[in-house]
Amino acid sequence: MDKSKVTDAGLDALIHAVQRAFENTPDPRLKEIMTLLVKHLHGFAREARLTQEEWFQGIRFLTEVGQTCSDVRQEFILLSDVLGLSMLTVELNDAKPAGCTAPTVFGPFHVEHAPRYDNGEDIGNGAIGKPCVIRGSVRSLSGRPIPDAIVEVWQADDEGLYDVQKPNLGQAQARGVLQARADGSFDFRSVVPEPYPIPADGPVGKLLHASRRSAWRPAHLHFMIKAEGHETLITHVFRRGDRFLQSDPVFGVRDCLVADWELQPDGSTLLVFDFVLNPSSEETGS
Amino acid sequence: MDKSKVTDAGLDALIHAVQRAFENTPDPRLKEIMTLLVKHLHGFAREARLTQEEWFQGIRFLTEVGQTCSDVRQEFILLSDVLGLSMLTVELNDAKPAGCTAPTVFGPFHVEHAPRYDNGEDIGNGAIGKPCVIRGSVRSLSGRPIPDAIVEVWQADDEGLYDVQKPNLGQAQARGVLQARADGSFDFRSVVPEPYPIPADGPVGKLLHASRRSAWRPAHLHFMIKAEGHETLITHVFRRGDRFLQSDPVFGVRDCLVADWELQPDGSTLLVFDFVLNPSSEETGS
Repeated sequence: MDKSKVTDAGLDALIHAVQRAFENTPDPRLKEIMTLLVKHLHGFAREARLTQEEWFQGIRFLTEVGQTCSDVRQEFILLSDVLGLSMLTVELNDAKPAGCTAPTVFGPFHVEHAPRYDNGEDIGNGAIGKPCVIRGSVRSLSGRPIPDAIVEVWQADDEGLYDVQKPNLGQAQARGVLQARADGSFDFRSVVPEPYPIPADGPVGKLLHASRRSAWRPAHLHFMIKAEGHETLITHVFRRGDRFLQSDPVFGVRDCLVADWELQPDGSTLLVFDFVLNPSSEETGS
Repeated sequence: MDKSKVTDAGLDALIHAVQRAFENTPDPRLKEIMTLLVKHLHGFAREARLTQEEWFQGIRFLTEVGQTCSDVRQEFILLSDVLGLSMLTVELNDAKPAGCTAPTVFGPFHVEHAPRYDNGEDIGNGAIGKPCVIRGSVRSLSGRPIPDAIVEVWQADDEGLYDVQKPNLGQAQARGVLQARADGSFDFRSVVPEPYPIPADGPVGKLLHASRRSAWRPAHLHFMIKAEGHETLITHVFRRGDRFLQSDPVFGVRDCLVADWELQPDGSTLLVFDFVLNPSSEETGS
């Protein structure tokens, strides 16, 4: 067919007709979101000159993504992750000023009410892996140490698995909650985290395969740090030299979050990392 | 949070990183589609400044759409319909030059191997509704009648239902295939089609309700007309004066497809409609 028969004016008229259909939406934010969604969805299909067969392939793909979701699996979040949309929502909503530790994606493996530990304790709690010591501190953007910050940690073990991925484990492993000391310092023992693949047996895995993209996340330790008067920080610390740093399927790596994990004479690995939190807007008056 | 901390350059860098992840995709068309999808998906989230809660509402909505799909229901096509994406793919792929009958959406109620009828016969085959006579002709853009065109028709009945929506009906009703005469003319009897709502009991119905949009399609007769040397025409004929013409939830109405259905002295309704087909590009050499 001669595509020149399609005029931009005709296609624009369709966009406007669809947008007008949403003009009586009582919730102004829903109306705004739908109006913009229609603009960009049509913009995509128009720029791609999507064929009817491609449109139908897209319908089938999204259907399979929805039907892969279950109580223990969220394939649409995975799709959002591999398209960089999850990381984009972090950047849009949780960006920090220069000098603060950068946030990254939350991920699906956080658990409420993780066990509490004292500084110096082993949060591994039987997790399989090479021994590791983590030492850090929490301070404010001004440089002042933040006393008593709550430091929550979770990670995969030597097999690349989180405790919640192991059926019948019955206890938390390689996750815990600590409190920083009065000088902002904290330390704990655990196992060295290892890389792991995101679930690749569903439609998102097929997309990664068709695109020759790696499903492997570089090894990382998750941190969520809460302190009074400061924005909560949700981030990872990665391992320098990890072979998957350049191909994180969820785009969570930032250079400033890559640290040295140093092998010690006693065979353990040492990570030292200092976190800088952003004062809450109530504090700065902005 | 102070949104000014987010820079366009930082967000552009994320788009480019995601696009680069697709750069080794062997299928060039898949690579092109994913590259454009990432651009427009991020463009949407950025312009809407999507919050994390809104992102999650979107994830939940899409999951519900996927889980509403079944062997007999395609909620993602319905979503595509109410966002005008289905009509856009028609316009992108099947636009006709001026003078030809315009195409519109195919819809989900077409059935292969509908029964054959001779001109003048009643295709209603027991369908409930007011009696109707349809007379038409098929000609080429040049004005020349097209002999022997295959004219396929399907429609909802007086209750707004297609035969395939009636469990245990066991026979085709108000659908059939005819062949135009040597002079391009055809005629048949049926029932007057009536408006009907698209399925409104799922997530797409909730979206329509939240947007105060009508789920009712204006009454229409579906036509698919095939003739040698011509592009197949897939379209509807609507009824002038239908109260839902301005609010078709799938955006399928075009002024040139709205016709007079005239009440006759004998109590039947008469529709006369002439179809103009576009010669295939092989014929015109374009």
